[in-house]
Amino acid sequence: MSEASTLAAVDALREGAPPSRLRIEAPEPTVDGGRFAVKRCVGDRVDVSADVLRDGHDVLRAVVRARPARPGEPWREHPMVHVDAHVRGDRWAGSFEVDEPGAWVWTVLAWVDPFAAWREEVQRKVEAGLQDLAGELAEGAVMLRAAAARADGERHRTIQAALGLLEDETAGTTARTDVALTHELHVAVEAVQERFEATDMEPHAAVWVDRLRARFSTWYELFPRSWGGFTGVAEQLPRLAELGFDVLYLPPVHPIGETNRKGRNNTLVAGPEDPGVPWAIGLQGVGGHEAIHPDLGTPEEFEALTAAAAARGIDVALDLAIQCSADHPWLTEHPEWFNRRPDGTLKYAENPPKKYQDIYNVNWNTEDWRGLWQAVYEITLGWVQRGVRVFRVDNPHTKPFAFWEWLIEEIHRDHPDVLFLAEAFTRRKVMQQLAKLGFSQSYTYFTWKNAKWELEEYLTELAHGPEREYFRPNLFTNTPDILNAYLVDGGPAAFYIRLLLAATLSPTYGIYSGFEAYENTPLRPGSEEYLDSEKYELKDRALDGPMLPFVERVNAVRCEHPALQRLSNLRWIETESDGVLAYAKRWEQDLVLVVVTLDPRTVQEAVANVPADLGLPPVFAVEDLLSGERFDWHLGRNYVRLDPDFRVAHVLAVRH
Amino acid sequence: MSEASTLAAVDALREGAPPSRLRIEAPEPTVDGGRFAVKRCVGDRVDVSADVLRDGHDVLRAVVRARPARPGEPWREHPMVHVDAHVRGDRWAGSFEVDEPGAWVWTVLAWVDPFAAWREEVQRKVEAGLQDLAGELAEGAVMLRAAAARADGERHRTIQAALGLLEDETAGTTARTDVALTHELHVAVEAVQERFEATDMEPHAAVWVDRLRARFSTWYELFPRSWGGFTGVAEQLPRLAELGFDVLYLPPVHPIGETNRKGRNNTLVAGPEDPGVPWAIGLQGVGGHEAIHPDLGTPEEFEALTAAAAARGIDVALDLAIQCSADHPWLTEHPEWFNRRPDGTLKYAENPPKKYQDIYNVNWNTEDWRGLWQAVYEITLGWVQRGVRVFRVDNPHTKPFAFWEWLIEEIHRDHPDVLFLAEAFTRRKVMQQLAKLGFSQSYTYFTWKNAKWELEEYLTELAHGPEREYFRPNLFTNTPDILNAYLVDGGPAAFYIRLLLAATLSPTYGIYSGFEAYENTPLRPGSEEYLDSEKYELKDRALDGPMLPFVERVNAVRCEHPALQRLSNLRWIETESDGVLAYAKRWEQDLVLVVVTLDPRTVQEAVANVPADLGLPPVFAVEDLLSGERFDWHLGRNYVRLDPDFRVAHVLAVRH
Repeated sequence: MSEASTLAAVDALREGAPPSRLRIEAPEPTVDGGRFAVKRCVGDRVDVSADVLRDGHDVLRAVVRARPARPGEPWREHPMVHVDAHVRGDRWAGSFEVDEPGAWVWTVLAWVDPFAAWREEVQRKVEAGLQDLAGELAEGAVMLRAAAARADGERHRTIQAALGLLEDETAGTTARTDVALTHELHVAVEAVQERFEATDMEPHAAVWVDRLRARFSTWYELFPRSWGGFTGVAEQLPRLAELGFDVLYLPPVHPIGETNRKGRNNTLVAGPEDPGVPWAIGLQGVGGHEAIHPDLGTPEEFEALTAAAAARGIDVALDLAIQCSADHPWLTEHPEWFNRRPDGTLKYAENPPKKYQDIYNVNWNTEDWRGLWQAVYEITLGWVQRGVRVFRVDNPHTKPFAFWEWLIEEIHRDHPDVLFLAEAFTRRKVMQQLAKLGFSQSYTYFTWKNAKWELEEYLTELAHGPEREYFRPNLFTNTPDILNAYLVDGGPAAFYIRLLLAATLSPTYGIYSGFEAYENTPLRPGSEEYLDSEKYELKDRALDGPMLPFVERVNAVRCEHPALQRLSNLRWIETESDGVLAYAKRWEQDLVLVVVTLDPRTVQEAVANVPADLGLPPVFAVEDLLSGERFDWHLGRNYVRLDPDFRVAHVLAVRH
Repeated sequence: MSEASTLAAVDALREGAPPSRLRIEAPEPTVDGGRFAVKRCVGDRVDVSADVLRDGHDVLRAVVRARPARPGEPWREHPMVHVDAHVRGDRWAGSFEVDEPGAWVWTVLAWVDPFAAWREEVQRKVEAGLQDLAGELAEGAVMLRAAAARADGERHRTIQAALGLLEDETAGTTARTDVALTHELHVAVEAVQERFEATDMEPHAAVWVDRLRARFSTWYELFPRSWGGFTGVAEQLPRLAELGFDVLYLPPVHPIGETNRKGRNNTLVAGPEDPGVPWAIGLQGVGGHEAIHPDLGTPEEFEALTAAAAARGIDVALDLAIQCSADHPWLTEHPEWFNRRPDGTLKYAENPPKKYQDIYNVNWNTEDWRGLWQAVYEITLGWVQRGVRVFRVDNPHTKPFAFWEWLIEEIHRDHPDVLFLAEAFTRRKVMQQLAKLGFSQSYTYFTWKNAKWELEEYLTELAHGPEREYFRPNLFTNTPDILNAYLVDGGPAAFYIRLLLAATLSPTYGIYSGFEAYENTPLRPGSEEYLDSEKYELKDRALDGPMLPFVERVNAVRCEHPALQRLSNLRWIETESDGVLAYAKRWEQDLVLVVVTLDPRTVQEAVANVPADLGLPPVFAVEDLLSGERFDWHLGRNYVRLDPDFRVAHVLAVRH
């Protein structure tokens, strides 16, 4: 009906074979009809399904075929089952494991099985008491002869023996059909059958496979200048590893511009000692995005840091912020990459109502867009070559989608282990688009979801809505830009609550340095900016916050419990209270129940109503993974009392 | 990420312009991501929507463009509105009317509007009290100069005047920005604006537009041999028109085979007087699908019938049954179109447990499939040339999907007014596939849906599920093959109930001759076959059933009430009874309420609980369109009493 289908029909008439009678449709999982890849991690099993339709009443077979997308890689074939046959459906399901990172493709191959159809027909007619089956037996003999020619060894003998009996006209019909219907014959023929009308799903479906850290990761963000530069940061690595952090995210480490440099608390005039904002990147004579701020250390020290981190299982994540200070070398080397006003002035960056007088955006519509894209690619690749495998991308939603899709794919071509976190707090569909086109993880609205209903609604969407196939939420509790009122108003208990929520709702979460010390003084009442923000001044930081033992314990629990390393297994539990949130996560034998207060001020009493279909016995033993206590819980209502000064949550492992 | 997107990215790098920064996604209505066309009728307004995404914070504009799919046809442009802007969504909606039958295409064209963005920025800065807007004003002047160059007349004068003030550096900032923000200037510039980054949705979306009868039609099925052949049938046309039927469906009118001809009641041996089954098509020396059975009349008489019918607004629908008796000329002319067993015998058709010993299917996998497709095309075209504009297609689900897609498209190329009804009672997805690929109407499971819950469930799916875009149900009450137990057991009241349901639930329905006479004797208890079925013997039929006055009234009501000529407006009404079904249909000013008993045996009492949101006043006058009675009804519960011997339903028009 559409123009495309007209052409297909005409083409089919021109070619030799008739168009396939099979249609393979509605494959899952896919994103936007196959336009984008779904995301998985190494070791995941991908459950797939598709409709397999054909006219008529023939017996169909189908398999799922999967392989890494490299040219020449052979298909690996996996069985599919017709899952709704008994209700006259057309859905087939199967699965395959993705055992290496990178791009994968999969398809469904379906075909017609005339021997099975023949067998069903003979069986039906035998059961109906029909005697004259000469025509059917002759048809069967043709198929058996063809099968025998393709078989060898035991199979050949089985088929040949059956053929002899089938063609023995001196034998009775019953004896001959009995042979035709044996299970042994069926198995032998199926094993060597030709795949009639074999039809491949078009287009193939895509899976992008990341290393496990894309799904399960624990982030700590710090400004290296507050820790003595790269060597000072390197000294923190043993403790960070002990605390359970496996991604150490550094804001931009590049030279900082001097023109329009911001002073303390975002003032427009910097004092001589003010270090400037790390996101105002570039200084003439020192360098741009490829360079390192001299105060932080040398390139060698940076590489030593990434190497030392890697040795402890920690990724150093770098900030990829494609923007320039007025002193960035690009402004002189590539003036054509910037938009100037009619009066020749540059326009500083704005994200209303925020203003960045020290920052200029590039013009993505420049005629030399190829040069610009290539430059960013080379910068990114340069950092990969210095050991960076994770990038936190600043404001990706203000740069072209096509650019990101291209950049991520180019980097992934040789480095499929590189992860990209999208720092986009913007319209939902734009955030989704960035995740679809390739970002490995995404910041979320989590910091602004503090009430029970909004946590349940938002996490349900992330865990169980269409985004589950491509959008991996990274639940930061705070960032240098986001100090939520809940933390400001709630005091220390609020910090324990929010960390526990982030760490147990999502397999990936993060904190920005200072969180563990309950830092919560806003620039002014109602502001989400920190007072005396580290963005504008030097601090002297240390890993000594009072919350660290709790952080360490929670992160250890996450490592010990595979159920907490996934999002798709999130299941809410009724608490009969708006002040208490509860949920279960199960993965294989591991089952964790979390009951957490949302109220940082007053004691909350509630029940955790354990549903029968979690598969637990009427009474079961649980261990509180935070306190070490043991309780007997039971199906149905379990009383809980959560006191923000003493215990904000139960994190219970069900003991077997 | 997928192979396709890699290529697109690489291609973009090769070409001159950067890839578009706009993405236009998730267009609705579409079927299977645009693989198939949605269906509409001439005069329908097509409501469309799509996501329009771009990075950054620019102001976007979008229009929907639609046109008949003919080459060279110009686009007609219609406005789109950003419908969820205030909740930070990205959805745009618009509509267009389809005013002629055939294939249509539509697309969304979106672009960036820098003048609107500039205007918003100036407004924001003015409101913030900023004084130094020299840079902004200079930017605006550039845009105004460009706009002035594109404008003429009053617009040119408006823009030029504003430009003069804007550039007057002696004037104050306020005076200059006031000019920049006038509504007149905005309108003048928008009217002549360039469409920056103009981006077309790819691929375009398709709509197939039928004449109105595709949606709203009233079918009567008769075997012409029971009515004196074509001339006898022609004599019935005035009464059929009076009764409100507008499609007269004839089972196959072709010569009938003699080999293995069936006798009365499907017996395997025919007597010398037995006429055979009309679906056993073809007789050597007389003809096949292109020929007319000599007992029915001449080709001229057939053409006279279609012409006389057309003059009364009735379509003669022919049966397209691609199957052959053993005596069909194709068996000798095209033996390669048939599958023979190893012993040379043909295999008769089966649809387990049904057997058709008098019918042979063609082999769609024949090497000469092109010849076979072409032959069916020529046969179909031949009947079109004899005045047939509607085909009821027999068992389309046992022929290749690709064949139907091709055939329907080929016929539609020159004859977009031809309708195809799919007679497929099979797996749901196969029925959907046939509708998707082009069938105008479809038989349904309606005959087997007699309980309230199954009627509500099924009609809700058809009216409001994804099928609403492409699947038009034709609710036949009975067919020569389907005499449902409800009719057998329920007696005359069951017939009134089922006709009323079919005729008011769906804009398209049909009855098979004999229904109006309460014919309900099954071949044997539990069978859905009629005793002494017309399929196997000659009858002497007349339009004299006792139900005809009711049929005539119901069909007249359908014609008078546009609300009954659509399915998408179906809305259930609570009755507080499993024995009574109620629903409302509204179209523009027309509102019809139907309350119908489902119990053909006993009196049912119930309420029709009219919901407030139908927009009716607390008390409103209704007229029973069947009885002429008038009542006062009110919002909330209205008592109804339905006695199967006296009144099976209220069909109430709300009076204004």
